[in-house]
Amino acid sequence: MDNAKRAEVLVQALPYIQKYAGKIIVVKFGGSSMVSEELCGAVMGDITLLTQVGLRMVLVHGGGPDINAMLKRVNKQSEFVNGLRVTDDETMEIAQMVLCGKINKNLVSQLHQHGGRALGLSGIDGHMIEAVQKDPALGHVGEIVKVDPQVILDALDHGYIPIISTIATDTEGHSLNINADTAAAAIGVALHAESVIALTDTPGILRDKDDENTLISRIYLDEAPALMADGVISGGMIPKIECACKAIEKGVRRMFIIDGRVKHSILIELLTDEGMGTMFRLR
Amino acid sequence: MDNAKRAEVLVQALPYIQKYAGKIIVVKFGGSSMVSEELCGAVMGDITLLTQVGLRMVLVHGGGPDINAMLKRVNKQSEFVNGLRVTDDETMEIAQMVLCGKINKNLVSQLHQHGGRALGLSGIDGHMIEAVQKDPALGHVGEIVKVDPQVILDALDHGYIPIISTIATDTEGHSLNINADTAAAAIGVALHAESVIALTDTPGILRDKDDENTLISRIYLDEAPALMADGVISGGMIPKIECACKAIEKGVRRMFIIDGRVKHSILIELLTDEGMGTMFRLR
Amino acid sequence: MDNAKRAEVLVQALPYIQKYAGKIIVVKFGGSSMVSEELCGAVMGDITLLTQVGLRMVLVHGGGPDINAMLKRVNKQSEFVNGLRVTDDETMEIAQMVLCGKINKNLVSQLHQHGGRALGLSGIDGHMIEAVQKDPALGHVGEIVKVDPQVILDALDHGYIPIISTIATDTEGHSLNINADTAAAAIGVALHAESVIALTDTPGILRDKDDENTLISRIYLDEAPALMADGVISGGMIPKIECACKAIEKGVRRMFIIDGRVKHSILIELLTDEGMGTMFRLR
Amino acid sequence: MDNAKRAEVLVQALPYIQKYAGKIIVVKFGGSSMVSEELCGAVMGDITLLTQVGLRMVLVHGGGPDINAMLKRVNKQSEFVNGLRVTDDETMEIAQMVLCGKINKNLVSQLHQHGGRALGLSGIDGHMIEAVQKDPALGHVGEIVKVDPQVILDALDHGYIPIISTIATDTEGHSLNINADTAAAAIGVALHAESVIALTDTPGILRDKDDENTLISRIYLDEAPALMADGVISGGMIPKIECACKAIEKGVRRMFIIDGRVKHSILIELLTDEGMGTMFRLR
Amino acid sequence: MDNAKRAEVLVQALPYIQKYAGKIIVVKFGGSSMVSEELCGAVMGDITLLTQVGLRMVLVHGGGPDINAMLKRVNKQSEFVNGLRVTDDETMEIAQMVLCGKINKNLVSQLHQHGGRALGLSGIDGHMIEAVQKDPALGHVGEIVKVDPQVILDALDHGYIPIISTIATDTEGHSLNINADTAAAAIGVALHAESVIALTDTPGILRDKDDENTLISRIYLDEAPALMADGVISGGMIPKIECACKAIEKGVRRMFIIDGRVKHSILIELLTDEGMGTMFRLR
Amino acid sequence: MDNAKRAEVLVQALPYIQKYAGKIIVVKFGGSSMVSEELCGAVMGDITLLTQVGLRMVLVHGGGPDINAMLKRVNKQSEFVNGLRVTDDETMEIAQMVLCGKINKNLVSQLHQHGGRALGLSGIDGHMIEAVQKDPALGHVGEIVKVDPQVILDALDHGYIPIISTIATDTEGHSLNINADTAAAAIGVALHAESVIALTDTPGILRDKDDENTLISRIYLDEAPALMADGVISGGMIPKIECACKAIEKGVRRMFIIDGRVKHSILIELLTDEGMGTMFRLR
Repeated sequence: MDNAKRAEVLVQALPYIQKYAGKIIVVKFGGSSMVSEELCGAVMGDITLLTQVGLRMVLVHGGGPDINAMLKRVNKQSEFVNGLRVTDDETMEIAQMVLCGKINKNLVSQLHQHGGRALGLSGIDGHMIEAVQKDPALGHVGEIVKVDPQVILDALDHGYIPIISTIATDTEGHSLNINADTAAAAIGVALHAESVIALTDTPGILRDKDDENTLISRIYLDEAPALMADGVISGGMIPKIECACKAIEKGVRRMFIIDGRVKHSILIELLTDEGMGTMFRLR
Repeated sequence: MDNAKRAEVLVQALPYIQKYAGKIIVVKFGGSSMVSEELCGAVMGDITLLTQVGLRMVLVHGGGPDINAMLKRVNKQSEFVNGLRVTDDETMEIAQMVLCGKINKNLVSQLHQHGGRALGLSGIDGHMIEAVQKDPALGHVGEIVKVDPQVILDALDHGYIPIISTIATDTEGHSLNINADTAAAAIGVALHAESVIALTDTPGILRDKDDENTLISRIYLDEAPALMADGVISGGMIPKIECACKAIEKGVRRMFIIDGRVKHSILIELLTDEGMGTMFRLR
Repeated sequence: MDNAKRAEVLVQALPYIQKYAGKIIVVKFGGSSMVSEELCGAVMGDITLLTQVGLRMVLVHGGGPDINAMLKRVNKQSEFVNGLRVTDDETMEIAQMVLCGKINKNLVSQLHQHGGRALGLSGIDGHMIEAVQKDPALGHVGEIVKVDPQVILDALDHGYIPIISTIATDTEGHSLNINADTAAAAIGVALHAESVIALTDTPGILRDKDDENTLISRIYLDEAPALMADGVISGGMIPKIECACKAIEKGVRRMFIIDGRVKHSILIELLTDEGMGTMFRLR
Repeated sequence: MDNAKRAEVLVQALPYIQKYAGKIIVVKFGGSSMVSEELCGAVMGDITLLTQVGLRMVLVHGGGPDINAMLKRVNKQSEFVNGLRVTDDETMEIAQMVLCGKINKNLVSQLHQHGGRALGLSGIDGHMIEAVQKDPALGHVGEIVKVDPQVILDALDHGYIPIISTIATDTEGHSLNINADTAAAAIGVALHAESVIALTDTPGILRDKDDENTLISRIYLDEAPALMADGVISGGMIPKIECACKAIEKGVRRMFIIDGRVKHSILIELLTDEGMGTMFRLR
Repeated sequence: MDNAKRAEVLVQALPYIQKYAGKIIVVKFGGSSMVSEELCGAVMGDITLLTQVGLRMVLVHGGGPDINAMLKRVNKQSEFVNGLRVTDDETMEIAQMVLCGKINKNLVSQLHQHGGRALGLSGIDGHMIEAVQKDPALGHVGEIVKVDPQVILDALDHGYIPIISTIATDTEGHSLNINADTAAAAIGVALHAESVIALTDTPGILRDKDDENTLISRIYLDEAPALMADGVISGGMIPKIECACKAIEKGVRRMFIIDGRVKHSILIELLTDEGMGTMFRLR
Repeated sequence: MDNAKRAEVLVQALPYIQKYAGKIIVVKFGGSSMVSEELCGAVMGDITLLTQVGLRMVLVHGGGPDINAMLKRVNKQSEFVNGLRVTDDETMEIAQMVLCGKINKNLVSQLHQHGGRALGLSGIDGHMIEAVQKDPALGHVGEIVKVDPQVILDALDHGYIPIISTIATDTEGHSLNINADTAAAAIGVALHAESVIALTDTPGILRDKDDENTLISRIYLDEAPALMADGVISGGMIPKIECACKAIEKGVRRMFIIDGRVKHSILIELLTDEGMGTMFRLR
């Protein structure tokens, strides 16, 4: 690469670094990027670099596949109600152990290997996430009532990268499982985050889902309903987008759907004019 | 109780509260006090009260019985070397999940129910405990190399009660299991703690182990070797006392062995002239 | 006393210590507790202990008997108007010398002997109390116009226990004598005090003044008029209660009438559920 | 006066104001300047003005004549030992009342009338002056052991002008009477004062005591012994100069003997090139 | 001069020093006081002294004669439009060089010789003065649009005396020449200055311009129009007074016209009751 | 450019940004980069960008060609001594006007057009550079005696980019002209700068001056003498390198000679692994 091109990338990136300095970016981590050791390492590296140049990065993770694997190891047969799995006591116990004890601490450890300084948190710590049972029939599945971001802000103020597993408690101290996309959005709102970035296994929102050249780079909030009606946004993407839209209405500036399967997609999205995936924002 | 007696208790307690104000007290939590819901609740209450009047309490916990129960649930057959169980990959994974994911977060939740504000940490978070493998034959059992207390101090500074599960990492980020008594002592040293209090299933050190009236209230460090030689300190108490003595040599002011089976034993020990168990200190 | 009972006292007291931490408590000191060396010592001890655990104690004192004794020594014959003694120039000079020069400095000295750090103030210092002449016929007797609490707050901020003698000045700098109960209440209001505690020679307000078992523990402000009408509150207690009620209306949370003849009555009142004397508060 | 002369005074004074800004000046107040209402008012005015332009003024006062008058009023017959009056219990009590209760508070009040903000202190407050009995035969006459200037510094930091009466306490809390010149010097040392100014009833040190034109403007410390040997410094001036010399040796920069009988002598001394009285300093 | 007179000057001056402490005084420097080395030195001395006793002095200067001299040296023939000189590119370049490069830096250097610590600024630095072209026919003559006083305040906060040459820039970065009186007034407004002092070659506003005894000491703003109508304020004084009046309306407390030909006129004006020139203020 | 390459540039640059955050970089500006409007604009842009991401940039400039042009305009015939031009009074006056009044202010204005916030300083302001006459025969040519960096640090602390013209004063306040390379090095030392970057009209130090492919990327200090002996460093580069070497010995970490004729050469040098020109440092 010649110097003129390098200079071009830098001249483009530096204003973004300034613009994002001190701003909070919540990254929802999941899918392939969490499974592949190489991709996961690149995410950890990107988060560390961005923290070092002054962004305040917060990582929120799920962990469905690991929970399923552990349930299988203890021979747990799940019950289903209307096709939805019931989170009974044993399932809840396993989910909490896997998310807070295994994945969370392993991510903390990996981030340290990339030079960051991480603090593993859950929605239980410092009363961060208070929830209520969503539906008695589904057991310990929670709906968020309140997010108190103080424990995350304290961690950021001391220079830690908070890594959060999405277990909440009700007012009596019982654990409840929370959907990680929903939690990331609610945490973004509570932190007055600049952006929430969701790492997914898609390039973003495609007008024709079979053609990556039809990527929609920017969607204004008021365009979302039509895109859902048209089926451009469909399936599992719908609840993701719905909670993203709510987060933007409540003050998050930007929501990004980016491709977790591409290395350094976070850097590209945040520090180049072109970006990579789909950005949602107010008009 | 008449007012003169109440006044006597208060006149006695208030100077201790002043003396301990702002000082760090590390409580090693384990045994019966962790199993009984009532005793555990009293410990959580005492820690909350002491925090509220200005002491800086830190809780360190183990969790052997829960780990064993989980190993059984996944039908894990342990190997043994020279009678010591080998912590292989699977055992390590289970231990980490149970300690960091189950016990730690449940204690955080319980402390919240008593009005405290807790933060669940492990030796992994913020690079708190760095360790090396003790003996390759025993697998992932660690020996502490360095304790960086910053993440604990940051939590204390923000008014959280840190609750710590004793998993460490080596320099490559691999998890290692650490004995909780050893960890509590090392954390006490790193924090320049005023005291380390171990909640045990004994009244303290008894001159005649069958007669509770022979409790030794205070043992000077230089008396410890003779008491071990005489068998007054024996069995599982020996390693506990050895690491306590090392901690005192490195700057912890006092080490207490108290009876976790008695409600409010922490309050009695810290705030009355008579105390309850056995105190170790320099002459 | 057994440990369970001690624990009970402590578990009860600690939340009060937290509740009162940083709060201002004004103690009006007078009567037997000021005459008896033993009782006076206990008050000094209690105030020191409470300061050490974080309360911000302020002591206001009178000194009628000492003033009378000094007037006698200089053979001063007092004039009377409608049965009230006239505070002429000489009486005023003697009162100021006795209150500010003798009693105030001796209390400062005694508090130091109990380990406190006191600062003797009068209403003259730092323009603390401005007053006007109440009635020309009575001479230098003042009615409070304004209390500037800054000098007291500065003393508290630097860790001193302020001890205040109740001499005020008018706008031309002339000294005026102020009733100590009235001054304590006005100082409590100006300091936004949590409580004003008056040490008296009674157990509190008794429904039947000859039966200590009829002590009324709590009186709501709106009950006071009826109690005065019924004669339950009578004689010298009436002006005390009237200025207490005014203080509560202006923001002091609680006013206590307690028995200065009982050692440690301040500790018992503040740190136990039962208390000792009579508490006045808003409903 | 024409503008050129005014300008000359100002051009001369401003650098002194800058030089003394934030510096501590201890004024020993006594003699005629304390008796005459007009002179006393001018001193209060000067101290207020100098405080307003940034000097940190501290006033130390004695009060012999008032004490004698009060002793007479109570018909106290003094005993004498080797020609020195014995300060027995009654004399001590009267001295404390007069100094701390009458003179001190009246000076505070007068300073307020000149627009200052004063705080009346004694050596008892905040453990300021600790002393021991000088000679059992002389009763409660103290020799200074230690000056803790914290309470004075706290007052200065909050913008008060401290006015100090020179009663000390021994370690058991008993009051002791202290010579005001000695106390002013010791307080100057403890405060690392820039200057100690003694207001006297002389124009300063005169080479010929009958000729004011022989005023010595500056005396270097090493010249003092010869001047005492020659009788130039004699009588009551000798102990004043001795303690001044000690104060300079211990760090006070300058000691002034000025004429308290001349209005505004403090201003003239501090803010003009010529000064007024005699300055002592290291060569 | 005797001590009583000195004391009188000081007793008068000290309250002014207190009153002006921390206040901002803008001095418009020009005319004879800038040409005469002696007068210029006295101004530098006064500004240094006043800064040392706590006033926050700001110096604004013009420099017409020097600019003219330089234009002559480069043989620049000026064009005129309606009798007004046109500031073409070359004239602008010369004006900027002379004001910012010669006069400004020489004043900084001279102030240093008087013990001050100066910082030379222009309206260009820190975007201080933004202007627009007044009239295309006149070339680079600017009219002030906005004054951002931050760079001046930063200099004052660090203890520098700001010396300002009145070149502004338009939004495209082109230099524009600004009238120094107008600039001084606008800077005074932006700084919320206490006073603006203009050093002129007159004693102030004279009722009879030929009789210095008819000096008007104080003019209320609402009297100014009549004085202009009457011709008392006339000629070149009119625009000076007009912008002074505007400054007072926008918050500057006082505007002084004083005689720059008299040494120390700034000191006399600010620190004596009588003052020297003419003061403008709101009634 | 594809995303992988962009990511590569960013992954490389971000650690440099962190490494340089808060560090001071002195840029010596001169030659072609100062003459070409496009290059000058790119330098201003780079300095603004680097400031925005946290570096503390300081610009030092010369201005020989402009001074010569101005001397010509006033028909100044220079005298020469041993082939060196004499800086007589008139030359000095012109040099100061051109550097401080024209170039400096124009650079401030240009930096503002690129979004920066600049403060134009000279060695005169805040006593920054004190010098002595180098050689009476050469007139007002100065040799640096002392650099007081406080005024530069104050500017940096308030977020300004200081732009410095290299005129100094002697202790009597006379102006002296200073070589800009020498001044930049001395300022770098006084500021404890991380790096000094000299923009030159060469690609750096070439082993074969006719072949740009022989650029030496890094020269250790102890290699410099040999390179001068060999003629690799020769001519006008010798004094530049000599003062660079002295600066490194006194604490500047790195000195760069880079090509001012290439756009964005500062960015490339600071934020890429390869850099552009020649770096000098301690081994």
